[in-house]
Amino acid sequence: MNKVMDTMLNHRSVRKYTDEPVSDEMLASIVACGQAAATSSFIQAYSVVNVTDAEHRAQIAEAAGGQVWVNNAPVFLVLCADMLRINQCCVDQGMGALEGYAEHFIAATVDVGLAAQNMMLAAESLGLGCVFIGGIRNDPAVVRDLLKLPKHVYPVFGMCLGWPDQDTEVKPRFPVDIVLHKGTYRDSAAEAVRDYDQVMSRYYESRSGNKRISNWSAQTAAAVQKKKREHMLAFLQEQGFLLR
Amino acid sequence: MNKVMDTMLNHRSVRKYTDEPVSDEMLASIVACGQAAATSSFIQAYSVVNVTDAEHRAQIAEAAGGQVWVNNAPVFLVLCADMLRINQCCVDQGMGALEGYAEHFIAATVDVGLAAQNMMLAAESLGLGCVFIGGIRNDPAVVRDLLKLPKHVYPVFGMCLGWPDQDTEVKPRFPVDIVLHKGTYRDSAAEAVRDYDQVMSRYYESRSGNKRISNWSAQTAAAVQKKKREHMLAFLQEQGFLLR
Repeated sequence: MNKVMDTMLNHRSVRKYTDEPVSDEMLASIVACGQAAATSSFIQAYSVVNVTDAEHRAQIAEAAGGQVWVNNAPVFLVLCADMLRINQCCVDQGMGALEGYAEHFIAATVDVGLAAQNMMLAAESLGLGCVFIGGIRNDPAVVRDLLKLPKHVYPVFGMCLGWPDQDTEVKPRFPVDIVLHKGTYRDSAAEAVRDYDQVMSRYYESRSGNKRISNWSAQTAAAVQKKKREHMLAFLQEQGFLLR
Repeated sequence: MNKVMDTMLNHRSVRKYTDEPVSDEMLASIVACGQAAATSSFIQAYSVVNVTDAEHRAQIAEAAGGQVWVNNAPVFLVLCADMLRINQCCVDQGMGALEGYAEHFIAATVDVGLAAQNMMLAAESLGLGCVFIGGIRNDPAVVRDLLKLPKHVYPVFGMCLGWPDQDTEVKPRFPVDIVLHKGTYRDSAAEAVRDYDQVMSRYYESRSGNKRISNWSAQTAAAVQKKKREHMLAFLQEQGFLLR
């Protein structure tokens, strides 16, 4: 292990921050670290919107299900998959505009994930605390309209950053051998869920003051929901994605 | 800047490796670092297949367009979006099976991106060199069949790891202010592409022995292609994704 891996293994989401600001220089260096990640065919298919307007923040916090840390964080970013520059290339090279193939959606969405993880880890390495906000997909049209996101761009998730004002615990993950398959895929879903439920029940029980006795299955099913965010496909198609 | 950020900014893709193996313990610690990343609603929707069979590697290398490093790397992984365990939760909790909403596809695909970036950076922090292989999506059904990937799982990209046997350069990215938007989205696509083309032309010219004088627009348009991987949507739907 080393400093890089220690920083990773020490990750926890932070939702409470001191009033101390995050400087523009620090934010730029965090974004530059995001850009240093690998990118599919070097397309760099992402944009980061630094949401500075308090009213925009309030509307996004509400759309995300009342996540007050979206209002209160020193910095709140919206990370977008951005095929607009790539579309410009295609037009400039005489190929015509992109037509919304699933492949392009995957490439851009993965690009955002890779860059975002570098951004979060860079921020944590500087002592900042962060949390990703998938809840912005509850009402992505509100986010699009407020931030003036054009066609070929969609908001994937948000990110709050600030100096931590809470101490949270690292949550235990699946054992490595559930996630890492040797040779071919081994279907251990039933076993994994059963065993991990016990681990997480003990974890929740052990936390002082935590009255919630639950397990991973129940929480995951409640979080995932069978029909979650049914509007997403239509929204993405409006933005020019997943048309074919 | 610090050791974590320096490691990020020093990233380059490595496709040539020495014969020295990567130990199982090292691989497990790299995957554990991947798992330490944030995950949407804590669903941990990924699996990593360590492809050990030489014949499987050869077929995947060919499907990926003749990428010989898939054969030659000490370790070749396929990173999968995996909703099988989550589906098991939904069934166990009496909700019934997942129905293929786009939201679930995004959550799982982002989870893979976040975990993969930690894996790559952890590997690089140990002195390894890596490259992601999006080319496995050229023929994802071959990958699925060889690795026995079930429904609710799809191969997002591959990853080669090994001890570097080449010294490549860090490629210049977009200027930060093209990617980072203040307040609302600023459409600078045309300007960004034009200016960055000049930067990349100079970069390619300056590389000793590199006869390819090109720019980002031409390369990106050629790489993206308007109708790239037209099979992806149908394939993903076979796997239970993007049905609605």
